[in-house]
Amino acid sequence: MVNETQHICSTSSSSKSDGGSSSGSESSKDSSRCSTPVLDADRHERLREKMRRRQDSGDKWFSLEFFPPRTANAAVNLISRFDRMGAGGPLFIDVTWHPAGDPGSDKETSSMIIANTAVNYCGLETILHMTCCNQTKDDITGHLQKAKRLGLKNIMALRGDPVGEEWEEEVDGFNYAVDLVKHIRNEFDDYFDICVAGYPKGHPEAESYEADLRHLKEKVFAGADFIITQLFFRSETFLKFMKDCQAIGITCPIIPGIFPIQGYHSLRQLVKLSKLEVPQEIKDVIEPIKDNDAAIRNYGVELAVSMCRELLDSGMVHGLHFYTLNREVATTEVLKRLGIWKEDPRRPLPWAVSAHPKRRVEDVRPIFWASRPKSYIYRTQEWDDFPNGRWGNSSSPAFGELKDYYLFYLKSKSPREELLKMWGEELTGEESVFEVFTCYITGEPNKNGYKVTCMPWNDDPLATETNLLKEQLEKVNRRGILTINSQPNINGKPSTDPIVGWGPSGGYVFQKAYLEFFASSEIVTALLKVLKKYESRVNYHIVNVKGQNITNAPDLQPNAVTWGIFPGREIIQPTVVDPVSFLYWKDEAFALWIEQWAKLYEEESPSRMIIQYIHDNYYLVNLVDNDFPLENCLWQVVDDTFELLN
Amino acid sequence: MVNETQHICSTSSSSKSDGGSSSGSESSKDSSRCSTPVLDADRHERLREKMRRRQDSGDKWFSLEFFPPRTANAAVNLISRFDRMGAGGPLFIDVTWHPAGDPGSDKETSSMIIANTAVNYCGLETILHMTCCNQTKDDITGHLQKAKRLGLKNIMALRGDPVGEEWEEEVDGFNYAVDLVKHIRNEFDDYFDICVAGYPKGHPEAESYEADLRHLKEKVFAGADFIITQLFFRSETFLKFMKDCQAIGITCPIIPGIFPIQGYHSLRQLVKLSKLEVPQEIKDVIEPIKDNDAAIRNYGVELAVSMCRELLDSGMVHGLHFYTLNREVATTEVLKRLGIWKEDPRRPLPWAVSAHPKRRVEDVRPIFWASRPKSYIYRTQEWDDFPNGRWGNSSSPAFGELKDYYLFYLKSKSPREELLKMWGEELTGEESVFEVFTCYITGEPNKNGYKVTCMPWNDDPLATETNLLKEQLEKVNRRGILTINSQPNINGKPSTDPIVGWGPSGGYVFQKAYLEFFASSEIVTALLKVLKKYESRVNYHIVNVKGQNITNAPDLQPNAVTWGIFPGREIIQPTVVDPVSFLYWKDEAFALWIEQWAKLYEEESPSRMIIQYIHDNYYLVNLVDNDFPLENCLWQVVDDTFELLN
Repeated sequence: MVNETQHICSTSSSSKSDGGSSSGSESSKDSSRCSTPVLDADRHERLREKMRRRQDSGDKWFSLEFFPPRTANAAVNLISRFDRMGAGGPLFIDVTWHPAGDPGSDKETSSMIIANTAVNYCGLETILHMTCCNQTKDDITGHLQKAKRLGLKNIMALRGDPVGEEWEEEVDGFNYAVDLVKHIRNEFDDYFDICVAGYPKGHPEAESYEADLRHLKEKVFAGADFIITQLFFRSETFLKFMKDCQAIGITCPIIPGIFPIQGYHSLRQLVKLSKLEVPQEIKDVIEPIKDNDAAIRNYGVELAVSMCRELLDSGMVHGLHFYTLNREVATTEVLKRLGIWKEDPRRPLPWAVSAHPKRRVEDVRPIFWASRPKSYIYRTQEWDDFPNGRWGNSSSPAFGELKDYYLFYLKSKSPREELLKMWGEELTGEESVFEVFTCYITGEPNKNGYKVTCMPWNDDPLATETNLLKEQLEKVNRRGILTINSQPNINGKPSTDPIVGWGPSGGYVFQKAYLEFFASSEIVTALLKVLKKYESRVNYHIVNVKGQNITNAPDLQPNAVTWGIFPGREIIQPTVVDPVSFLYWKDEAFALWIEQWAKLYEEESPSRMIIQYIHDNYYLVNLVDNDFPLENCLWQVVDDTFELLN
Repeated sequence: MVNETQHICSTSSSSKSDGGSSSGSESSKDSSRCSTPVLDADRHERLREKMRRRQDSGDKWFSLEFFPPRTANAAVNLISRFDRMGAGGPLFIDVTWHPAGDPGSDKETSSMIIANTAVNYCGLETILHMTCCNQTKDDITGHLQKAKRLGLKNIMALRGDPVGEEWEEEVDGFNYAVDLVKHIRNEFDDYFDICVAGYPKGHPEAESYEADLRHLKEKVFAGADFIITQLFFRSETFLKFMKDCQAIGITCPIIPGIFPIQGYHSLRQLVKLSKLEVPQEIKDVIEPIKDNDAAIRNYGVELAVSMCRELLDSGMVHGLHFYTLNREVATTEVLKRLGIWKEDPRRPLPWAVSAHPKRRVEDVRPIFWASRPKSYIYRTQEWDDFPNGRWGNSSSPAFGELKDYYLFYLKSKSPREELLKMWGEELTGEESVFEVFTCYITGEPNKNGYKVTCMPWNDDPLATETNLLKEQLEKVNRRGILTINSQPNINGKPSTDPIVGWGPSGGYVFQKAYLEFFASSEIVTALLKVLKKYESRVNYHIVNVKGQNITNAPDLQPNAVTWGIFPGREIIQPTVVDPVSFLYWKDEAFALWIEQWAKLYEEESPSRMIIQYIHDNYYLVNLVDNDFPLENCLWQVVDDTFELLN
């Protein structure tokens, strides 16, 4: 538990001089002219600018703190949590520095890699904590360089806990957080946004509350951009602290750290480490219910909500920082009750945007990875240019290989036993595979009574949008058109549409109907005959695992299948069906049959051989109906195909 | 007249070995992947490939021959003729080489510059003739290099008329067309498509018909891609010639040269120069009507139509080449009666595409130059990259300056006297300017009884599309909103729509409503108040001649105002309102008041001072209604503005 409350309890201190609002020269240069599409100003701004913009607009915000997990499985779960809690619209998340856990390493569980995943794969603005005591200058510079390389743009500069009781200052060493702030500004100029810690009751090791305020001022004047505070139990504590800061000339944003009490044990642990005193009125409530976790959590939520309301009502507080302890329920509940959890925040693009600065111009992707965005990001991480406007202009033809297939963020979230229950302990033929696909679509339990909530190609249940097509999808999957991706046609719905909307308000979004599936060669032969009738209305790509490829796409050009028209902007076409990248996707789509499904079974077992047979003999097909204003003709194409087969 | 019939009469000869169908490595490289939008395969193909494609598809075509004019005014007229006859869809035009007229110079009337204008400013596939006799190798190489630099891709290689009676072959010189063909292939490899002349009756100087056929074969085998023939009077002549060519192994396309008889004088001149014999049955008809031009022309049209029908019906002829003598009526008439004049050929983009190979990827332009496309091409001729997909990505910020303002293809087609009649011999106030604008819109005569068929910003009468807005435009111009550019909103009309359609069939085109005008500062002040109500629905840019600029465009981003969605393609957005280029356009738009209008009047005259006043004090305004699916709100904006003023 000690590690898990890293920053909350970190007994760091120290500081210097206001860099408060040095304006971001880097991003303003980029936003000057011509080079970017930019649907969302967020994609361009530095964190400190986003914070200022939200403050100016009066729009309240929140942020979430997490600590790195101990095991790879826990990391997979934490990343799912990033996605779920990210959906509520945090301004940023932060990941604590875990000195005992090799925090700067490439391990799946290191602070560095978890923060990397949050930025690049989950698209979250992220602050990486970093402590400096007991570390060499070279180590620290190395960590910072690595963070920059990975696309991290924000550092929380902390002292960290000195090891051992008898700690002595090192001459020329990093003794206080202020030393780290100065070092970052010296070595990396204005590249990073820097956050420092504030202690509303004064740091436990400081000579006095006043001395601690002076330390904080030093940190700010050394170049910190904003302050996040240690937790506290009464709103007055924070509001007094804030006034005191302002009185001595600290003008940067100060964000209160909120700790919703989630259990008796974690509270005691915290108190011990942080040397904070729990007010008697809280102790009085908690002691009698200390064995009732639910009751304590409810109380914690109540307490946090009322304290947050007081803070927000004061007019001095614009954002709230939550110590989540890597848990979802309490924090989410508080945020929802405060009304600042934005259930369906505006999507800047119809897919999750990576927050890596290098990818900021990216606004076109092939539709194939729609359900595997992390895999797409992973396989394109070495690209130097990202497509901007047109798919073809700057996209690299080289996708990352599949050899690192097992990377933890590409793995299924579900353990083997669960997958077997969903996909069948024993398959009896291709039809039992059809059934699995059908159950996934319908949401009905399979014949053993289990719901199929994921598939090798979709780690999550059916998207709301796909639900629009449920009935037709069920019908075709039952007959062996095994769908893995689809979208309905959309002829100009408002960009604020809750299901298909994306981009700034006042715009209109469009889609061409899309259907992607595996099917036997028998079906494909009939399909090809049927497709002749549809000529250029339907574009198709049909490929098997060996790469035999049949298409009517003109000159290997990409086909835009999602686009949006917005006030004062160029057209944005975020998803395309690209013939070349389809062949890269094909490798991944076929490999998932084996890696995720066939390998659940013993070698040479009939179940495994059935999957292997499908892998070896089926075709992967995609169809686009180009005539988006008319009724989607793809179901007719499929019906005609089945009719021809009968 | 001699010069005007350059190629028809050019007594060149000579030849060698089939390069017939060497496939274009250059263009196929470009079309491989990703880099281009390409609505129209024509934009990518070499002329010989286009010819082959039309032949394969059974689609009959025609081409047009012109000679360079003698005066700058005649050049302006010829260029208008290129635009008008280009609208009929010729596969190419060709421009004869005029040795006496300094054909390779930079003069407005030189063969080189006329061909340059046809390619770059009129977007026509163009063949430049070139003769070689009496020229040094260096001269010829220089001409070819210049042609290549200007974007010319096709050469008609001719011998040219030797000077003087006693002509002798030069050793190692260019004595025959075949020498020029060889030289082009040696020095420029496969860069140019090469055409050579064929003589259905044999060259008048050849020893025999058979010897001449052997010369032709030499030219083809030396690397010529196709043959255009000298004129003839009977279809049998050509068909026999074609069979004879095939019999000796000439397999490249052979295009019959058609000469519609347009007058007695020109026929006699031609006969003299070409040493051709006019058949007796033709002489018998013409002699009695030799003073009746109309009768001769009608007969010539009849004769040409019936001969062309015989040629096309033979199945051996796929394209017809017309010797126009720089005249429109007869040739157009023949083409219309044959049904191969395509009145409204498909527009690959909503503006005229330059045929310069460097510009082939260009598919976005600012809307401002919509009525002055040649000026836009001129001012961007130094750009190395042309925008592809997004305006901002590759467009150069540097537009060519206005100093060469008087370049002949930027000048008004109308002489000063006509302009004065249209725009007023004497202006009495701003209202008389309003009246000129209004008359231009309505098509009604002005108070002196003259129709206003052009304006400084529009050299042609109102576009069909603008006619849709005529009523509203008339109303606002009367009141001093002096419109110079506008388009209605379009919400998904078929790309084949005769008025607003463009791009390949099966697609849909869209537009945001656009209005651009000059207005007094009083109107602009009211307008700005009104625009507040419309918030982000209406984007505006307002600027005066001094560059004072008011806009609500987000981050200086371009706004797409025309776009199209096509089967199997990325989105094409060919016109944008770009805030940065608007300031370049502003200079031109204001300068046109002075250069074209004020300067019609004496210095210090009241008329001139009125225009000068408008130039100095009015604002140039553009408005975009972003909500394209709703009714155009810009008229409401203008109405509200006038109401506020009352």
